[in-house]
Amino acid sequence: MRYLRNCWYQAGWSSELTQDVPLARTIAEIPLLFWRDGKGGIAALLDRCPHRFAPLSAGIIKNGSVTCGYHGLTFDGSGRCVHNPHGGISSAMKVASFPVVERHTALWIWLGRSEDADASRIPDLSYIDATPETARIAGYLPTRANYELLSDNILDLSHADYLHPTSLGGMMTSAKTSTSVDGEHVVVDWDARDCVPPRAFQGLIPSPQRGDIWIQVRWVAPAVMTLSTFAAPSGTPRTSHGTALTLHNMTPENQGSTHYFYCSTRPYLTGDIAFTEHLRGAITHAFSIEDKPMLERQQTQIGDQDFWDLEPVLLSVDVAAVRARRKLKVLIEAESRN
Amino acid sequence: MRYLRNCWYQAGWSSELTQDVPLARTIAEIPLLFWRDGKGGIAALLDRCPHRFAPLSAGIIKNGSVTCGYHGLTFDGSGRCVHNPHGGISSAMKVASFPVVERHTALWIWLGRSEDADASRIPDLSYIDATPETARIAGYLPTRANYELLSDNILDLSHADYLHPTSLGGMMTSAKTSTSVDGEHVVVDWDARDCVPPRAFQGLIPSPQRGDIWIQVRWVAPAVMTLSTFAAPSGTPRTSHGTALTLHNMTPENQGSTHYFYCSTRPYLTGDIAFTEHLRGAITHAFSIEDKPMLERQQTQIGDQDFWDLEPVLLSVDVAAVRARRKLKVLIEAESRN
Amino acid sequence: MRYLRNCWYQAGWSSELTQDVPLARTIAEIPLLFWRDGKGGIAALLDRCPHRFAPLSAGIIKNGSVTCGYHGLTFDGSGRCVHNPHGGISSAMKVASFPVVERHTALWIWLGRSEDADASRIPDLSYIDATPETARIAGYLPTRANYELLSDNILDLSHADYLHPTSLGGMMTSAKTSTSVDGEHVVVDWDARDCVPPRAFQGLIPSPQRGDIWIQVRWVAPAVMTLSTFAAPSGTPRTSHGTALTLHNMTPENQGSTHYFYCSTRPYLTGDIAFTEHLRGAITHAFSIEDKPMLERQQTQIGDQDFWDLEPVLLSVDVAAVRARRKLKVLIEAESRN
Repeated sequence: MRYLRNCWYQAGWSSELTQDVPLARTIAEIPLLFWRDGKGGIAALLDRCPHRFAPLSAGIIKNGSVTCGYHGLTFDGSGRCVHNPHGGISSAMKVASFPVVERHTALWIWLGRSEDADASRIPDLSYIDATPETARIAGYLPTRANYELLSDNILDLSHADYLHPTSLGGMMTSAKTSTSVDGEHVVVDWDARDCVPPRAFQGLIPSPQRGDIWIQVRWVAPAVMTLSTFAAPSGTPRTSHGTALTLHNMTPENQGSTHYFYCSTRPYLTGDIAFTEHLRGAITHAFSIEDKPMLERQQTQIGDQDFWDLEPVLLSVDVAAVRARRKLKVLIEAESRN
Repeated sequence: MRYLRNCWYQAGWSSELTQDVPLARTIAEIPLLFWRDGKGGIAALLDRCPHRFAPLSAGIIKNGSVTCGYHGLTFDGSGRCVHNPHGGISSAMKVASFPVVERHTALWIWLGRSEDADASRIPDLSYIDATPETARIAGYLPTRANYELLSDNILDLSHADYLHPTSLGGMMTSAKTSTSVDGEHVVVDWDARDCVPPRAFQGLIPSPQRGDIWIQVRWVAPAVMTLSTFAAPSGTPRTSHGTALTLHNMTPENQGSTHYFYCSTRPYLTGDIAFTEHLRGAITHAFSIEDKPMLERQQTQIGDQDFWDLEPVLLSVDVAAVRARRKLKVLIEAESRN
Repeated sequence: MRYLRNCWYQAGWSSELTQDVPLARTIAEIPLLFWRDGKGGIAALLDRCPHRFAPLSAGIIKNGSVTCGYHGLTFDGSGRCVHNPHGGISSAMKVASFPVVERHTALWIWLGRSEDADASRIPDLSYIDATPETARIAGYLPTRANYELLSDNILDLSHADYLHPTSLGGMMTSAKTSTSVDGEHVVVDWDARDCVPPRAFQGLIPSPQRGDIWIQVRWVAPAVMTLSTFAAPSGTPRTSHGTALTLHNMTPENQGSTHYFYCSTRPYLTGDIAFTEHLRGAITHAFSIEDKPMLERQQTQIGDQDFWDLEPVLLSVDVAAVRARRKLKVLIEAESRN
């Protein structure tokens, strides 16, 4: 088993799935079709008709069921065949279905044993719900690199000093860093005192002032990270009101490709749409023009080789990423023993 | 052996091979070069010079022979070296050649033992010859899907109700269906009485009349199918004059790609060129815009997996396709034992 | 070991590597980064950071060192880590480096044991240095074919009669040919007396005269060839002043792709820039429009199959190419035993 099964993967944003248009997306190498069943629920089936393996996404959704576009077998959201225009319905006429929950403006799918699909295990991202839409920036960035490389990227923010030196970084390398484990979470803190703030923080720390910037990343398996940021003029006491939370969630499409979902939220300037749009531009630029090409080139150099077989040289900044990789490995191995 | 060898494959239409321009085409993974030898015959050689493996299709055809464009070895239509500009000719200087017959406006190649290449085993498509050119619609549609998937498609015409619901189908699912075996042929009949005719039959069944539509598909290995269609206002006696015959011939390029040849003929309105062009548009649209994308998406979902290993759910409409698949499998296995 | 290691490969032309812009190139499947160290030397490192395997070519060259663009590790030209912004430097923080020598207007890299990197083993191409720039035509032609196919092409110039019949060839097939071995060299001579000269020689043999053309190719492992050409009106005594020398050097990128470097030099008309430009056009056309497509189609027909497993039919013109292939094979096998 190369992927964790008994966990919730983010399959998309709620807004990607409209009442009329289904969503086809491959997660952990499983081609899936999602649609709204018209009763408030969401169906997720293997995107493959059991008859002749046409993709159900080439069919038609109607009355909460999907009709294969090739020979007309119809399946409801549970994967049960509800219409065979050519004869009777047998128990073999079914499509694998997966539990889906819509929460925190996102779609979550459970690929493991469905009886274990406990929605309380969905990561708590209630900060998204608590943030007005005008202060949320959600994005989706398909990236041709392994999802663990994308987790590494967020768990080692020192890269910001080199990939985003003036926009997001510049103060990370000299920050005080500490890594800890908090239950299922790996937590890494970056504490930069009295530093020159990069452009992204100039709204909070007016030039030419120096500032305190504190960033925390909390990782939970398989690859869900929340980044907390506090920035203020040097010496300002840290407050939750000043702390912005951003989701970075890496859903594997396959071993070489990742569905990267992110959502920036902030508790300040929440009605300032112009600021939101400014921030959206900065984030989109950094993630898609600076991070993504580096991650994809890194993946190209690694190719099909195992990351550890290449014997990476580990630095102090890698502690959190290495702990997260080991935790995930242990979880995947535990599943394969069951 | 993954392909049947001792059979005639359609390599192309006669019109594709002019006196001046040869034809390079890969059949059953064998790269081939065809040309007219100027004496009424057609040569078919492995498209690879035995010297340094340049494709002979990069050379020049002259006086019925092909000269390799790289170092000038010349081979006649039997694959024998007839000129080595650099020295003597040895028996090793030869290229594999294959029997070719031009019949029924098509080119046929035999990939098996050449001593068994009996032209009388070419499927009888004399209905093409008997049809005036003005009433023939021949086409070639390269498709990135396994040739057996394309045979399945023709052997289960119920798909027309879903892929071509208003143009070609609509009455198939409710038709009376029967499958039989007639010697080497698998035969499937679709009998739709007093139905609402789809657009393709409106020339024969004027609106708002209802009609009888009868369709028969005869398959013979490896993947040659003739489709007979009779359509008339309800209650009209069936006549051969009213029966149109269409060839669907699937020649494998490789396991994931097919040369799809089709030829529609009809015994009525044979001089009506406007009707022919109307029909050509409808056929081209249905095959290339509706069938081909579905077949290619189906192939993508299957990938390299074996069709039977995926455990397809079989429906009543699959009887003919499954019989044809089994017959072909038996024939291929019989060859591998010899 | 599929490539010879203990030899100098041409990595590029000196002019490709400026003071400011590094050069990333894969040689024998090893991704490499070259740059000028500012002290007259050239660095060549594995193009992969040992930390997280980002390509160093995505970083920045400064003060003779390269800084990884992802997390800022800095390596000098020897591959030693000279700066770790995140902590101390350990002996594990190093990148494989390779000896590079700049000679004969080219860059040469040694992929074998560095203690054996003896610059005196670089092939003697001093004819390039001895030729004024106005009489040199250097080129680089990446070609998707195995480098031994490209060597074969130069070692069997009879192909010129078929691929370049009026520009470079026409008299090769009827020339007197002899092959010999001279130490590490395989040497093949083509002596065409009193022939009709092709266009490329019309500057030396004015129309309508007939001429003597003598061409010699000297090959040395792995794939370095110097082609000597003498052309003059029939009966003219051969002189070194009339002999033009052209380098053809085939550096493997991988088994299916070659860095083809060539450099035409001549000892006559050395200041005639118009003639140089005329010749550049003719050479570029022949190599890129005539040779390269044939070589790439040849590679396509061969695919992943071993050249000898395909049992090529050998002609008299293949003697030199076969000797060169055997010599290279012996050298590679000898290395794998050590």
